[in-house]
Amino acid sequence: MLPAELVSTLNKTLTPDRFYTDPVDCYTYAYDNSRKVFPPQAVVFPLTADEVQTIVSLCNQYKIPLIPRGRGTGTSGGSLPEQGGIALSLERMLNIISVDVANRVIVTEPGVLNQTVQDTIKPHGFFWPPDPSSAMYCSIGGNIATSAGGPHAVKYGTTRDHVLGLKAVTGAGEVIKTGCYTTKGVVGYDLTRLLIGSEGTLAVITEATLKLTALPSAVAGITAHFRDLKGCVSAITQIMSLPQLPSALEFLDSGSLNLIRNRYPDMLPRSANAMLMIEVDGTESEIAKTIAVILTACKTDSLIQANQAENIAALWKARKALSPLLREIAPKKINEDVVVPVSSLPEFLNELTRLSSQYQIANVNFGHAGNGNIHVNLLINPDDTDEATRAEQCLDKIFDLAIRLNGTLSGEHGIGSEKRAFINKEIDQPTLALMKNIKLLFDPNNILNPGKIFP
Amino acid sequence: MLPAELVSTLNKTLTPDRFYTDPVDCYTYAYDNSRKVFPPQAVVFPLTADEVQTIVSLCNQYKIPLIPRGRGTGTSGGSLPEQGGIALSLERMLNIISVDVANRVIVTEPGVLNQTVQDTIKPHGFFWPPDPSSAMYCSIGGNIATSAGGPHAVKYGTTRDHVLGLKAVTGAGEVIKTGCYTTKGVVGYDLTRLLIGSEGTLAVITEATLKLTALPSAVAGITAHFRDLKGCVSAITQIMSLPQLPSALEFLDSGSLNLIRNRYPDMLPRSANAMLMIEVDGTESEIAKTIAVILTACKTDSLIQANQAENIAALWKARKALSPLLREIAPKKINEDVVVPVSSLPEFLNELTRLSSQYQIANVNFGHAGNGNIHVNLLINPDDTDEATRAEQCLDKIFDLAIRLNGTLSGEHGIGSEKRAFINKEIDQPTLALMKNIKLLFDPNNILNPGKIFP
Repeated sequence: MLPAELVSTLNKTLTPDRFYTDPVDCYTYAYDNSRKVFPPQAVVFPLTADEVQTIVSLCNQYKIPLIPRGRGTGTSGGSLPEQGGIALSLERMLNIISVDVANRVIVTEPGVLNQTVQDTIKPHGFFWPPDPSSAMYCSIGGNIATSAGGPHAVKYGTTRDHVLGLKAVTGAGEVIKTGCYTTKGVVGYDLTRLLIGSEGTLAVITEATLKLTALPSAVAGITAHFRDLKGCVSAITQIMSLPQLPSALEFLDSGSLNLIRNRYPDMLPRSANAMLMIEVDGTESEIAKTIAVILTACKTDSLIQANQAENIAALWKARKALSPLLREIAPKKINEDVVVPVSSLPEFLNELTRLSSQYQIANVNFGHAGNGNIHVNLLINPDDTDEATRAEQCLDKIFDLAIRLNGTLSGEHGIGSEKRAFINKEIDQPTLALMKNIKLLFDPNNILNPGKIFP
Repeated sequence: MLPAELVSTLNKTLTPDRFYTDPVDCYTYAYDNSRKVFPPQAVVFPLTADEVQTIVSLCNQYKIPLIPRGRGTGTSGGSLPEQGGIALSLERMLNIISVDVANRVIVTEPGVLNQTVQDTIKPHGFFWPPDPSSAMYCSIGGNIATSAGGPHAVKYGTTRDHVLGLKAVTGAGEVIKTGCYTTKGVVGYDLTRLLIGSEGTLAVITEATLKLTALPSAVAGITAHFRDLKGCVSAITQIMSLPQLPSALEFLDSGSLNLIRNRYPDMLPRSANAMLMIEVDGTESEIAKTIAVILTACKTDSLIQANQAENIAALWKARKALSPLLREIAPKKINEDVVVPVSSLPEFLNELTRLSSQYQIANVNFGHAGNGNIHVNLLINPDDTDEATRAEQCLDKIFDLAIRLNGTLSGEHGIGSEKRAFINKEIDQPTLALMKNIKLLFDPNNILNPGKIFP
């Protein structure tokens, strides 16, 4: 139960439609895409940075957990009120503060959707590169809190490459302003990127200054089907050693293709056991040249066919078909997003097959091959205790494998609560201790998203 | 004087050629490109991260300032031993640990020169984008400590965009490892970018994992001369609103052109009062198209001529001629590197002319116009006390102006000691307090480059 005094003060601070305490109302803010459920005792909807500051100060006063939240599309449990407390939904801070085409900058509040930013700047010839699959629905604040990526990260980088500055309220209740408005700036420490990817544990972002990128004049795509994994991975490493970076290089393994085939028997060549979807962008002439060299790079012994897609919708058809099928067959699948160096993909994917067989856990793997960022999906029935235990053991080995290959536990999902037990595999004790101390510095009472990231 | 015990321990730890105490030997490490002089009491030259850690621990034990140093090419006094102590020269940590072309990564020790990195990776078709004018001589460690930029930052960004991970020894003597080896990674806080640009105040960088970029297949350039500043700045904003980013967009004002003209009467058109050097890169066909649109963008009323340069050397001829001339006429010139949004360049440069006249301080302005990053040079005779005072007043107004126009005090030089008195103009108290606390967290005894950045 929240202290009565705190509830009374929040009632005076926020109108009833911006302060929920009814468990039914609060339930919507109890989950994210990790599919775990932890209801908050209350939900607040600030409209201004001042209100955020007031709420943070009150939570400090009463030592109540405060869990910042964009649109709850994260998969690592980063926005779950695990320890109860108050969910701080930024979804109503929706103002676009300025659109400055001459300087290639947009300034927004945190609740603005990624898609709204794209729609706002597209008529001016720009886009904002981070493109998580939830772009239609997820918010800029959430994108920043997780350093969101997406398929175009292979060419354009992730969120941390496209934010110039932030305003935020720290866990201690201090209003801070980080970074600058210009594309260059080296004044003081880079707190902007310290906040990017910090999963709401250091500060609540109240305003973001985003750097825009010019839309390419044209986009084209190639789909390539391979008889075996080896030939496909060989094509990936060939493509990534070309000077021309594709704007996306996505991979589907045989497990993925079989799922699609079961539902759509004619979508894929019969003998295909691996597939690439390759997008390139730039000027028409550039694209023509890049398409040609990529088609050549695809010509491994195991290539069945590699063709330029009729259009971009056709390029992504198989990938779009896959997601709902995965959810259907394994509603509680474990979806990871480890990364390995591109040159280690062959070893990683081979070992994955071996682990899948050793632990008898069906898996389906696909993802952002150009970054070496593979979504490893372990398909399990959570009611089968033995299978769940084997899946946990298998996952542990997958993380060990990624680290042994000089990779990382998470390319874009973050640690949240789902992976905090494993963070020691990647980050050594002194570095982790420093991170924990930074957390304490920003949030001395540990009220902001407590318990996340660190084991 | 250093404690005898410390000297004795260092004598046992390092061979005499790697531990200087003779003032004559130490003097070389007393200055940087700020042209201030503060001799250290000793200079140490570690060869390994372990030795760095031993030295940091000893300095903690005896509370002795330790000033990390690349090659001393900084202009803000960042590597000066202002409070005495020991200069920690990383110049002998020269190993290139790995060149991994398949993954577009090079791993180096901090003393490796920027140019050595370029020479190492060029045969493989890559470059590392940060290109300060001292690239031939400056080190990767120094580039990282200052988040070095250069003319190509307009297209490629600065150092913080091109580092994947670091190993470092904190001021507390802890060995930490930040970031990862892959192009994607969101595990824990972004300590990599917290260290980048921290000017040796948080940790000593002992190893850097750098992300490589493919060399463009072709480069071309345009020189454009304008009758007046107004038309030139109008061309800059026109060019920067094109979707095609130039790979460099450098500006010289009338003061700069007059200096060049005095020495080389035939290098420039007589009536030119402003000049642009514009570099574009990409494929041949892309370049042809970009050159055409940029030539059109240059066609303001005041354009005298805009021509494609015969070659890249010809493009940079005027700029190369300028630097030594500046040093000749004003050995103690004040060289700043404020940034304003590109759209504010007209107002900024006009106000600069007004301030120059108001304070009777001759100035010469040039620089990275595409980033709005202008090197403002106040030409003064330091023996003229009145002039020096007026210059200080004028500088203060220039900083105010940059901040008023939503700019920043430094685009690439950093704060060091030269600009710490002004940092309050840009960074508010709560944010600055947080930065100072981060400093204390990394370096509780304040031994690493003490007194820098903060007022």
